[in-house]
Amino acid sequence: MQIETQNERPNAEYDLIEVGIKDLKTFIVLKKNGQHYHFVPTVEVSFDLPKTVRGAHMSRIIESISEIITERKVCESAEKMQVNILKKLKQKHAFKHGRIVFTFDYGYNSITPISHRKTWEICKVTTETLINENDEFTHKVTVEVIGNTVCPHAMANNDGKTHIQRAIGKLTIIGNINMIPNYDKMIEIVESAFSSKTYALLKTDDESFVVQQMYDNPIFVEDLCRNILNNSEKHLRGRNLEICAEAISFESIHKHNVIARGRIRIQ
Amino acid sequence: MQIETQNERPNAEYDLIEVGIKDLKTFIVLKKNGQHYHFVPTVEVSFDLPKTVRGAHMSRIIESISEIITERKVCESAEKMQVNILKKLKQKHAFKHGRIVFTFDYGYNSITPISHRKTWEICKVTTETLINENDEFTHKVTVEVIGNTVCPHAMANNDGKTHIQRAIGKLTIIGNINMIPNYDKMIEIVESAFSSKTYALLKTDDESFVVQQMYDNPIFVEDLCRNILNNSEKHLRGRNLEICAEAISFESIHKHNVIARGRIRIQ
Amino acid sequence: MQIETQNERPNAEYDLIEVGIKDLKTFIVLKKNGQHYHFVPTVEVSFDLPKTVRGAHMSRIIESISEIITERKVCESAEKMQVNILKKLKQKHAFKHGRIVFTFDYGYNSITPISHRKTWEICKVTTETLINENDEFTHKVTVEVIGNTVCPHAMANNDGKTHIQRAIGKLTIIGNINMIPNYDKMIEIVESAFSSKTYALLKTDDESFVVQQMYDNPIFVEDLCRNILNNSEKHLRGRNLEICAEAISFESIHKHNVIARGRIRIQ
Amino acid sequence: MQIETQNERPNAEYDLIEVGIKDLKTFIVLKKNGQHYHFVPTVEVSFDLPKTVRGAHMSRIIESISEIITERKVCESAEKMQVNILKKLKQKHAFKHGRIVFTFDYGYNSITPISHRKTWEICKVTTETLINENDEFTHKVTVEVIGNTVCPHAMANNDGKTHIQRAIGKLTIIGNINMIPNYDKMIEIVESAFSSKTYALLKTDDESFVVQQMYDNPIFVEDLCRNILNNSEKHLRGRNLEICAEAISFESIHKHNVIARGRIRIQ
Repeated sequence: MQIETQNERPNAEYDLIEVGIKDLKTFIVLKKNGQHYHFVPTVEVSFDLPKTVRGAHMSRIIESISEIITERKVCESAEKMQVNILKKLKQKHAFKHGRIVFTFDYGYNSITPISHRKTWEICKVTTETLINENDEFTHKVTVEVIGNTVCPHAMANNDGKTHIQRAIGKLTIIGNINMIPNYDKMIEIVESAFSSKTYALLKTDDESFVVQQMYDNPIFVEDLCRNILNNSEKHLRGRNLEICAEAISFESIHKHNVIARGRIRIQ
Repeated sequence: MQIETQNERPNAEYDLIEVGIKDLKTFIVLKKNGQHYHFVPTVEVSFDLPKTVRGAHMSRIIESISEIITERKVCESAEKMQVNILKKLKQKHAFKHGRIVFTFDYGYNSITPISHRKTWEICKVTTETLINENDEFTHKVTVEVIGNTVCPHAMANNDGKTHIQRAIGKLTIIGNINMIPNYDKMIEIVESAFSSKTYALLKTDDESFVVQQMYDNPIFVEDLCRNILNNSEKHLRGRNLEICAEAISFESIHKHNVIARGRIRIQ
Repeated sequence: MQIETQNERPNAEYDLIEVGIKDLKTFIVLKKNGQHYHFVPTVEVSFDLPKTVRGAHMSRIIESISEIITERKVCESAEKMQVNILKKLKQKHAFKHGRIVFTFDYGYNSITPISHRKTWEICKVTTETLINENDEFTHKVTVEVIGNTVCPHAMANNDGKTHIQRAIGKLTIIGNINMIPNYDKMIEIVESAFSSKTYALLKTDDESFVVQQMYDNPIFVEDLCRNILNNSEKHLRGRNLEICAEAISFESIHKHNVIARGRIRIQ
Repeated sequence: MQIETQNERPNAEYDLIEVGIKDLKTFIVLKKNGQHYHFVPTVEVSFDLPKTVRGAHMSRIIESISEIITERKVCESAEKMQVNILKKLKQKHAFKHGRIVFTFDYGYNSITPISHRKTWEICKVTTETLINENDEFTHKVTVEVIGNTVCPHAMANNDGKTHIQRAIGKLTIIGNINMIPNYDKMIEIVESAFSSKTYALLKTDDESFVVQQMYDNPIFVEDLCRNILNNSEKHLRGRNLEICAEAISFESIHKHNVIARGRIRIQ
């Protein structure tokens, strides 16, 4: 007969905010518009553990993930899959608050500005689903997109010459899943906040277009952050969402990076 | 004459929570008990920026760091240096809330348990200082120590055989700097929470001691987290501190990690 | 009219061994046994540049990748896709030696040892294709698998008690693509070299099986490395391949790792 | 009595090229010109193991490091310390070829170009010492410096407008330690190969100087690599060294990086 050491009382009785698994890589299939998509997210799952219980049954977390992945029909979105996994997990293990996070590379298409070639671009997506005591769900989706910044201060002081660099724009949207736009829309919100968006492929004419666009839109890292907030407000009015923006600029004239972070509530 | 583009009004007027620099590596000298110590922290400095100001004067951040490092007498602790840098920065740039974070490798000595050899061990330290509108300072110090966990559930079900793995214990203490213990004390609190602490050097007799100690102290990742909280409470009573503990176990029978996180207030 | 700065003579005339692109993430579709598979590899492509030419036409690299991905029918393996990209690239740009590398997470199934559940496991695969002056191709495939080691020295000196830890086994096979086994076979060669292989999911009975197996197969990191070489020799005799093995053990009684590396030629 | 499992014959008799320790962090004190300097390198030590021996005595590696660090007088360079550790290790353990590698952050001073402020800059240094069967030593030192590139092709096609980005220059020198220049000289060789070197601190006048310098020196990643080789040849003639250069440019108009690698022999 098995001994369930997890069910013992712990030596030190403290409530734990989160216990669970982290850095699990697994294989996911989504079905969207009749097409299958595969990805390999890094997964974190956690829930609270009361002070009277020594350990969580960690294998039930993996079991819940496995059963949703292999037994059920494939889902149409990562968020729906997360909802299903949390529901399954709540049947197997008692907790008040649970959460599941996927981090993965998301591929999308761009069209080069002049030569009109189709390119594949990749951005990092993090999607988190939370379940509370009343089985209500909240979602939190982040896209992390690579673009660039062109310094307006150097440009103003050097007859149009300036320093330019790669930058990252991050947009996090928290709220009801029906109110959060899809990844492509979120990426568009971030891309239009840069001096210019970037492309895997650029022929000479495309490069000229991008260079000209960069010089036409000099921005600080603070501007990038505010542009993300502003674009979000324009596109998402009336959706009752919390918006967090972060901008990181890999300064070409320094070895360090500069950052800006802001947060707004959209009614 | 220079154009101060930073002082313009921004296109999109949003308050920013944090603007500043990140991933700056610099060279620091501390003087403690008559001895000089050098280290190369990774530095983050940030402060709020009101909606009416387009950009922060980022160079003043670096200037404040440089002036403290090179012009002043060396400090005796990283935290005092952080206080001095924030004070200097507040003279140069207006803000309500400021923060500075150093992350660095901290070296300390252990004595091997049987052969009594002196070894050098390294842990990661993060120390953060915050300044508010009234020039009051709060400190937040984290040590991240490597040890191990031995599974009590597998041990109970397999006649003493079990799985064992490397684990990380993190302790974060937030409060008044005079109430936060030194790094060595914090490391001791974490090290005594593991199945066994670890050593760079172990001769065969030391290894036997460590192996025996591991089998005598089987713990879940949840136990590790609670042990850190419990040890903190025992050692730091009466100090009015906030304590956060995090435990990560690199499971030897899985490819993923398991985690536990808790938080207490010590009066 | 465009100026082709790349075609100028460089100031300093040195042959370059490799010029190209790195850290490109792209979206790939493979078709195998009638099924489509998607993955997002990190890509490096490089070739030699003679001393008389200032710069490579980097956009032609991306163009070659894009054309193979979007214009052609999908390939059935990453390696065939790499061959096609290098052939396309050689039509667009002159070079003697070219190479393309994909690094990606590869998902495969395991069956838990006692409860016979199906689990998804992930390993890192790196696959490199080289083309030489005579349009001959060589391939180099690496799998990096997570398992564990159990110390035989501690076990012999402590009545069966020992230290156990997560470990990584890497197998690289270099040769003709028709002689290199598929990823699953390579993973099997590495998994059977550990004290035990690891699983995402383990119910209590499975855990007991794995624990027992670990104690039955105590190995040093050197044994792990030699087991990979030995398993390779047994399974791949007669295939004329170069085999490299690397083992890394994340010691549970130390903060550092131990390693072993070996190399054999299989006729 | 202890059982020396390491001394057994292995099951699978293969010579191993390298066995040892990796990712050890330790605390080092150097004494140079009467001053003490501390740093925390990441250390790798390895040597060959013949097919008849099952395992290396790994603790002797740590013992050799500890004895040199704590028992002996401090050394004046990382390379001398490496020589002493390898000599000590060869007394404790039989092997033909041994190597030790330190990787660490190295701090050095710059003077800003116009305001003449002193700044601290950091670069990554890797230093490796090899000992062969005849107790002869070879050294291999790498500096990895951050600077920038300005695209000459975009500049030529867009009336002086172009894209600019952060870049890394790596210089590796292999040879006799007396012929290898010091880190500061190696850094200077790399810094003068960029469009401009970078500084932690730049006041507006300094920034203007750097911006102007960048536009005056547009270079491809291939130019950066060749400039490092060329500068090395100019400064190190007659020293009988092998020189490897690597350049990485974090393209501001793409999400990927571009690279160039070259190698020359200086007689």
